[in-house]
Amino acid sequence: MYRSNTCGALRASHIGSEVVLSGWVHKLRDKGFVVWVDLRDRYGITQLVFDEERTPLELLEKARELGRETVIQAKGQVIERTSKNPNIPTGEIEVLVSELTILNKSLLPPFTIEDETDGGEDIRMKYRYLDIRRNPVKNNLIFRSKVTMAVRKYLSDQGFIDVETPYLIKSTPEGARDFVVPSRMNEGQFYALPQSPQTFKQLLMVGGMDKYFQIVKCFRDEDLRADRQPEFTQIDCEMAFVEQEDILNTFEGLTKHLLKEIKGVEVEEFPRMTFDDAMRLYGNDKPDIRFGMQFGELNAVAQHKDFNVFNTAELVVGIAVPGAAEYTRKEIDALVDWVKRPQVGAKGMVYVKCNGDGTFKSSVDKFYDQEDLAKWAKVTGAKPGDLICMLSGKTNETRAQLSALRMELATRLGLRKPDEFAPLWVVDFPLLELDEETGAYHAMHHPFTSPKPGQLELLETDPGAVKANAYDLVLNGNEIGGGSIRIHDKQVQATMFKHLGFTPEEAKAQFGFLMDAFQYGAPPHGGIAFGLDRLVAILGGQETIRDFIAFPKNNSGRDVMIDAPATIDEEQLKELHLKLDL
Amino acid sequence: MYRSNTCGALRASHIGSEVVLSGWVHKLRDKGFVVWVDLRDRYGITQLVFDEERTPLELLEKARELGRETVIQAKGQVIERTSKNPNIPTGEIEVLVSELTILNKSLLPPFTIEDETDGGEDIRMKYRYLDIRRNPVKNNLIFRSKVTMAVRKYLSDQGFIDVETPYLIKSTPEGARDFVVPSRMNEGQFYALPQSPQTFKQLLMVGGMDKYFQIVKCFRDEDLRADRQPEFTQIDCEMAFVEQEDILNTFEGLTKHLLKEIKGVEVEEFPRMTFDDAMRLYGNDKPDIRFGMQFGELNAVAQHKDFNVFNTAELVVGIAVPGAAEYTRKEIDALVDWVKRPQVGAKGMVYVKCNGDGTFKSSVDKFYDQEDLAKWAKVTGAKPGDLICMLSGKTNETRAQLSALRMELATRLGLRKPDEFAPLWVVDFPLLELDEETGAYHAMHHPFTSPKPGQLELLETDPGAVKANAYDLVLNGNEIGGGSIRIHDKQVQATMFKHLGFTPEEAKAQFGFLMDAFQYGAPPHGGIAFGLDRLVAILGGQETIRDFIAFPKNNSGRDVMIDAPATIDEEQLKELHLKLDL
Repeated sequence: MYRSNTCGALRASHIGSEVVLSGWVHKLRDKGFVVWVDLRDRYGITQLVFDEERTPLELLEKARELGRETVIQAKGQVIERTSKNPNIPTGEIEVLVSELTILNKSLLPPFTIEDETDGGEDIRMKYRYLDIRRNPVKNNLIFRSKVTMAVRKYLSDQGFIDVETPYLIKSTPEGARDFVVPSRMNEGQFYALPQSPQTFKQLLMVGGMDKYFQIVKCFRDEDLRADRQPEFTQIDCEMAFVEQEDILNTFEGLTKHLLKEIKGVEVEEFPRMTFDDAMRLYGNDKPDIRFGMQFGELNAVAQHKDFNVFNTAELVVGIAVPGAAEYTRKEIDALVDWVKRPQVGAKGMVYVKCNGDGTFKSSVDKFYDQEDLAKWAKVTGAKPGDLICMLSGKTNETRAQLSALRMELATRLGLRKPDEFAPLWVVDFPLLELDEETGAYHAMHHPFTSPKPGQLELLETDPGAVKANAYDLVLNGNEIGGGSIRIHDKQVQATMFKHLGFTPEEAKAQFGFLMDAFQYGAPPHGGIAFGLDRLVAILGGQETIRDFIAFPKNNSGRDVMIDAPATIDEEQLKELHLKLDL
Repeated sequence: MYRSNTCGALRASHIGSEVVLSGWVHKLRDKGFVVWVDLRDRYGITQLVFDEERTPLELLEKARELGRETVIQAKGQVIERTSKNPNIPTGEIEVLVSELTILNKSLLPPFTIEDETDGGEDIRMKYRYLDIRRNPVKNNLIFRSKVTMAVRKYLSDQGFIDVETPYLIKSTPEGARDFVVPSRMNEGQFYALPQSPQTFKQLLMVGGMDKYFQIVKCFRDEDLRADRQPEFTQIDCEMAFVEQEDILNTFEGLTKHLLKEIKGVEVEEFPRMTFDDAMRLYGNDKPDIRFGMQFGELNAVAQHKDFNVFNTAELVVGIAVPGAAEYTRKEIDALVDWVKRPQVGAKGMVYVKCNGDGTFKSSVDKFYDQEDLAKWAKVTGAKPGDLICMLSGKTNETRAQLSALRMELATRLGLRKPDEFAPLWVVDFPLLELDEETGAYHAMHHPFTSPKPGQLELLETDPGAVKANAYDLVLNGNEIGGGSIRIHDKQVQATMFKHLGFTPEEAKAQFGFLMDAFQYGAPPHGGIAFGLDRLVAILGGQETIRDFIAFPKNNSGRDVMIDAPATIDEEQLKELHLKLDL
């Protein structure tokens, strides 16, 4: 037996007991006549004590030599501390050690095992097993485990069945790039790793499973943007005999449960907003509604004066930044520079200071009078003391730019509070998305998404106008889940494939099994998938997912700890009937 | 809203209510003046009724036309059945339909959706989504979900943290063949899919996670034997600061909990048996101890007479088959033929009938007298009425043959009761296994398994004799879990790799990260992994795993439903820097 108690367990009530503890030497203080060792494990820290009076000299000397992160076992008696530490749960006691066993020595770690470490990202990733010893990472992983258990328990209690779908499936060129897996037994053929279990969960609905969920790894071979991983985890769900409203209610229930269970936060309201409104009011299909600064569209009140920048713009749009009228010229110039950065891409910014006395001072006073500016303040909801920031240009681009500015300003103003949670359903997404380069339409959600009732015919005449039974769950400016009511009719699915540019042969080769299945009594069905990595990070009050993943990959898709991917043997390639083509 | 209730919900207490049900047309009985439809969903079957008296003619005609597996929505009133069906929970009521909507038609399914179907294995796999509608498959999947929830809940309650380890890792030629995944971003390099998360869970222990579990897919590119899958699921667990006894107790707890929670069976005893004893007494390292028929080794009492077959044998061994003395000559000849089949491979079988009057009649009466035979009966524990079956030859082969015979006879005698559960720990496995072809030693469990304390030196002189801190959990003759205490010392791990034929360079290239980790304060640790597919099948009282997997692959590793693996585009290959080499 390595331990009678963990390092987080002992309290004043244990005083007098003989205990055995095991753990890591976290810190050692050597005062000459007394040596204190902070012994650490997952559960906490317990202070060990060795002193000249009560500890045999040999043992004291042995303790003195203990290096950081050495793994030891200590036997001794729980005694009351003379100087108590109210900051840790074991702070009332210490253990007077009578026996000390070194279980494993440690080299000096390449960074400190502290909440604030001196290790940079790269070295932390290479020695991830040491990084995990640090409280922030350890606690994130424990938090993730807690969230997944809560999700599973809630969905199980609601009658969802956890079904494992296969990882070795078939490659479908549509969508993002697949990772593929060469088959040794089927020469020249490949499996693909699933980008999501989409078709399988639909087949489970055809199979009558009624309510399905799975917490499942998915794979996408994309050029990695910051904070994306080639393998990521979804909470994947599907229900039969449901309309959109049933799904929204069910997963509103899940989200409420999580916020309450995990964060102790009660959220009553899950507002619903159409995609069109989200774009119009926030320039974004995943608006952060913890704060205001809604867009005001200003074409009607800003055009047809002599200011050509506005007159030639498709959209003139502004936001009122609360309390920012006091910004100095320098601060405002910095904002203008910020929106002109290539990552944002605005050509410039017009501003209006709404002074405390009700007057206005703008960067376009040459073209607009106080009455004009008062109209702008009305449209953007600006109050005395606010700063109106205005951008103009092509609608989509300008909205995206102003949305970026809105988020940046909210961050600077401290309006994005990590302990505040504002969920939102965005609904009525367009079915299709125009690829401006190729002029072709892509499925905005995926090709299995059902158009709104009665809009199928519109596909022929105005494909971009067709709305889908598709919805996203947005939390604090992040899309945490998205789903749709699916097509369950073979003919409708065939029509969709046609509009997405599939020949009937391609559709049959790739998704024939699904269309076949639709012929044997497919029920109406729909579902949703949550991005677990992001959900957990947001619930944890953080924006980056990497420290909520035990062993993440870097931006080149490499695991720098195990050094993967790597070359493989010639022999392995041969068995797979492959040759490198470098 | 598609339904107010499911098809398993309505009872006598609902009589008089207006309800809406949705589901599949399971059966239709048309008596002319009345039509009954069995409407089915995941939750049960509810009888719909249409009759001349109460149903508009048009609706009656529409009902009459409903084909099997059509998806319908029916609105109506719950009424009392005139002839009740006590066999189903909804048998007291039926629904008098007032509105009928056809949600989706169905072609005639290629096999019947009944508990006993007329569909063969191949067609059921191709139309798995229809197969899943059948109760046996549906219930198995629901059962599996129930088991995994119980496992997760138990382990979470015990402080285990569910940590997801990566699926895209590094290929290690040791062990079974890896499935590999070419990396597009890292030219000429490959990931591998994990055969198990072994090294990662050990790194989590180095990282101080203390108790880890995960229900995780694993992958092995093996030539598939019957009832093996290229992707399979493990309940993977690891603990730090534990000795073997701690692990056995913890997972005995889990297994007891599952048996009680899932099967309502209380099992007190988890006997422990050494590998050597298991081989000696059952000829097998996963003995089914639901019944006796222990081996009796008969060399001492059967050799040194004139029967050369026994005299030249390394091992003479027998079992007493209860009540089989009455077997006819023909039945015994059939047994002899059975052991001589190439799958078993015995050269012949000696038998002794233990007559009711205390006399013996054997196939070797020419060489042995009644006194000899009485000794055999004593060693094998045969009682009057039993039949002793004896095999002889080389020890390992003979044991395997007699073990096969023991299992076959137990099956024939009905001793392998599916509702009886007899778990067993097999411990003290050999560390290494001799490959008789190459003369090289392989790790019996895996290269990270710790030798028994004090046996490290024996590796040099008698590697085959070294025992490991390794254990299997056996249930009803199946290995359901296996694990070991791991090496946590870099030097010991290096010694192990050397004995397994790794050069220091190879060991570093493949497992350098693990040996590095061992230098930074690796705690003593160990773990276990359960094969979930088999565990669920055995708990379900069945021996084959395939119907406990939603979408299994066939023996060529193909998914015949989606037709995977498949060829991929030339473009995809090019991006991956690969060429086919057929």
